[in-house]
Amino acid sequence: MSAKLQDQISNESPVNLQLNSQGRLRHFLSIKGLPKSLLDEILDTAESFAGVENKPVKKVPLLRGKTVINLFFEASTRTRTTFELAAKRLSADVLNLNMKTSATTKGETLLDTLRNLEAMYCDMFVVRHSDSGAAEFIAKHVSPHVSVINAGDGSHCHPTQAMLDVFTLRRHFPDLRKIIITIVGDIMHSRVARSQIHAFKTLGFKEVRVVAPKTLIPADIEQLGVEVFNNVDKGLRGAHAVAMLRLQRERMTGAYIPNEKEYYKLYGLTPKRVELLHDNGIVLHPGPVNRGVEISSEVADGPRSVILQQVTYGIAVRMAIMSMAMQH
Amino acid sequence: MSAKLQDQISNESPVNLQLNSQGRLRHFLSIKGLPKSLLDEILDTAESFAGVENKPVKKVPLLRGKTVINLFFEASTRTRTTFELAAKRLSADVLNLNMKTSATTKGETLLDTLRNLEAMYCDMFVVRHSDSGAAEFIAKHVSPHVSVINAGDGSHCHPTQAMLDVFTLRRHFPDLRKIIITIVGDIMHSRVARSQIHAFKTLGFKEVRVVAPKTLIPADIEQLGVEVFNNVDKGLRGAHAVAMLRLQRERMTGAYIPNEKEYYKLYGLTPKRVELLHDNGIVLHPGPVNRGVEISSEVADGPRSVILQQVTYGIAVRMAIMSMAMQH
Amino acid sequence: MSAKLQDQISNESPVNLQLNSQGRLRHFLSIKGLPKSLLDEILDTAESFAGVENKPVKKVPLLRGKTVINLFFEASTRTRTTFELAAKRLSADVLNLNMKTSATTKGETLLDTLRNLEAMYCDMFVVRHSDSGAAEFIAKHVSPHVSVINAGDGSHCHPTQAMLDVFTLRRHFPDLRKIIITIVGDIMHSRVARSQIHAFKTLGFKEVRVVAPKTLIPADIEQLGVEVFNNVDKGLRGAHAVAMLRLQRERMTGAYIPNEKEYYKLYGLTPKRVELLHDNGIVLHPGPVNRGVEISSEVADGPRSVILQQVTYGIAVRMAIMSMAMQH
Repeated sequence: MSAKLQDQISNESPVNLQLNSQGRLRHFLSIKGLPKSLLDEILDTAESFAGVENKPVKKVPLLRGKTVINLFFEASTRTRTTFELAAKRLSADVLNLNMKTSATTKGETLLDTLRNLEAMYCDMFVVRHSDSGAAEFIAKHVSPHVSVINAGDGSHCHPTQAMLDVFTLRRHFPDLRKIIITIVGDIMHSRVARSQIHAFKTLGFKEVRVVAPKTLIPADIEQLGVEVFNNVDKGLRGAHAVAMLRLQRERMTGAYIPNEKEYYKLYGLTPKRVELLHDNGIVLHPGPVNRGVEISSEVADGPRSVILQQVTYGIAVRMAIMSMAMQH
Repeated sequence: MSAKLQDQISNESPVNLQLNSQGRLRHFLSIKGLPKSLLDEILDTAESFAGVENKPVKKVPLLRGKTVINLFFEASTRTRTTFELAAKRLSADVLNLNMKTSATTKGETLLDTLRNLEAMYCDMFVVRHSDSGAAEFIAKHVSPHVSVINAGDGSHCHPTQAMLDVFTLRRHFPDLRKIIITIVGDIMHSRVARSQIHAFKTLGFKEVRVVAPKTLIPADIEQLGVEVFNNVDKGLRGAHAVAMLRLQRERMTGAYIPNEKEYYKLYGLTPKRVELLHDNGIVLHPGPVNRGVEISSEVADGPRSVILQQVTYGIAVRMAIMSMAMQH
Repeated sequence: MSAKLQDQISNESPVNLQLNSQGRLRHFLSIKGLPKSLLDEILDTAESFAGVENKPVKKVPLLRGKTVINLFFEASTRTRTTFELAAKRLSADVLNLNMKTSATTKGETLLDTLRNLEAMYCDMFVVRHSDSGAAEFIAKHVSPHVSVINAGDGSHCHPTQAMLDVFTLRRHFPDLRKIIITIVGDIMHSRVARSQIHAFKTLGFKEVRVVAPKTLIPADIEQLGVEVFNNVDKGLRGAHAVAMLRLQRERMTGAYIPNEKEYYKLYGLTPKRVELLHDNGIVLHPGPVNRGVEISSEVADGPRSVILQQVTYGIAVRMAIMSMAMQH
């Protein structure tokens, strides 16, 4: 099915599906194609859901009576859990469908499965898929009453992750236009990096830097308006924040990356390297952390780390995106 | 366990468990044994839950505080999902127990498992089982406060499917007594067909036709008051509706059915054959559809197809049956 | 991970984590270390949740907006189901995480997983683990806003089971101080027995007897203030209750226990042995029952058996413990 889907995706003509005719959020598929005003609205809406101090995220009845389907073609307990919690705190009913093992898909096409779920008056599909473009493909074919949220598609994008990163940054640096941020890791294969770059540029960050081995920098990256560094120390100097990427260990065996030890030596975020950041500089990571590979334990658990804040704010940001899309 | 259960089932004496002493619905196990008035009540109750136009099925607090257990001994994401959604829209708490893999059944008998779930004050078991008679067996042994719904048992029956088919038909042809309907497919092994025939006959349909290869027509079928056709064209002529059955591909290898291509040629619902129906004739199918096997894609997606309406109305019909049984 | 966790557990210094500075329940990890007054409070609180006659356990809004995580490192459908039902009847949102198969734990430590769930503002972890001390280890490392409930850890303890046993006993014998109770089975490896002994002794039972083959009696058992019997008939004589333990069949092949038939002959609860109990004597078993191994079917289903009452009261007792811990 996967190969076939990839074919179908390639044959589609590109349209911006994310906004309705009034410019309101209809689907949330990628940061690319969304105006700054809409990203700001997401951040402001998330602010209303985020807890203060020790007060937890509030439960609100915004989506009572609505049905959210977690449509996961790729296993991810962590991401599924955050979307499930976000939906429940919006008072929606949630169904988890593991499409990898589900009999639903046996003997019927993906489109038939979608049609059936729509016919059951499901209101939102949260889609995770190993094929780039899968969420967009699904969004193209759903009924007018259904919204699609991209929870990560192949190496394409992971837009809710990028928005929770921005939200976390804004809590520390209210004026986003002053931020210098450095993304470190496998830029080429990272859906997180791609979404981050689009978000940071759209929101007018002062400077977006990427650091990676030459083999892991996409050829056309500079067209996105980022500064490319191969030396991590130079890339970190004076930055307000560093966004570490998770090293996909399956790349280790390839020609892309030396062994873990070597990688850590060249690109790992050590306590010493953190000192290169701006005085108030912070450390982001999408999790799960590979301790001692892309980041040292001391840094991950240290005072500059905002990794767990990212998780907390991730619920509020997903609540914001889900509730906005459902009101289209 | 399966063999043992089948033995136990055979040794039970037949009783009508479905109605309580006031004639109210207590369990919903099969269409056979239910009076017309009760089927009408199900249809009318479902009408109150069904959405109008683009308005979704409403969420109602009828079963708040009640616990529904999806007791699935046979995997079926699709059917489980519809019951789960129906229960949640009635505001019940729902637990899914996959009895095929569950440790619950290890080292204890089915009856012990049931007794334990009852003791947890579960109020309803929705049962799917590959053994004919399983839901009835369970209904015979539950406590007075528990209701059992048959979500498909072996090749015996699938009564909620039949009721949603009738509901869909009634939306198109309000006077059921004028309907000529044709069921096409493996009548012999189909739990759907068996339940449909009982429902259509109880509700006084004008004519119920069945079309199948001779090897797939049960010997005593005419006793049920149906017209038997071996030629699909003759069976379809003038009918208000055709109810296609899903071809179970595992029968392909047996002596029952030629190959898929041959089957499609002889019995498949082609655009040309659909023209034989009444001018307003409609096409039903319980899903999932085998495109190009029992039905052409053009027909399945065409203007006469009500396949997705069936899915939508299935939620309302199941809400009706669950709420009625819970009020016994 | 398991071996490492066991190491980490051993290196921790013992603290009583269960009570906060005001002596209120904060975590529920073991009966040991809890004062009688707190056990009494659990029993009284459970009384308010328990149904009367045929009236089911009530649904109450005590934990609305709270999130309970079933963190099961060891499969147990039955125990998970009772905690899930208890949480839902307290109106909490519940997430089941099967940590045996979950990708959550891949590439991150247990502590990282916990930190992430806490950051999502989960309020309670219900922990089942095959390592003794796992729940306590987790409790030591959670944030102030999170409570941990031990749902069984290795052969260490299973405190909610012991409390539901006491609750069931109290319904039959309101003055606990008059009860003579006999525990029969593999005392050495049973987490249930260990918790029962602590609960019965703390609550001042008149006499606590244990019956087991010599190979299955821990060396220092008498220090807990119990009477040891190797002969089951002598151990049962005059007791108000017998608490049978489930025979773990994996012990059969070892040197511990003869074959099942022999075990039943020597220690099985037969109708004849039940006659040795006090006139109103009752039979408890944590389930699932091995019929004909540790207990005869006639006794398990007989008039003195309170096995299903234990299941029912288990919901009320768990509701009590969960709501008390959440109010710390």
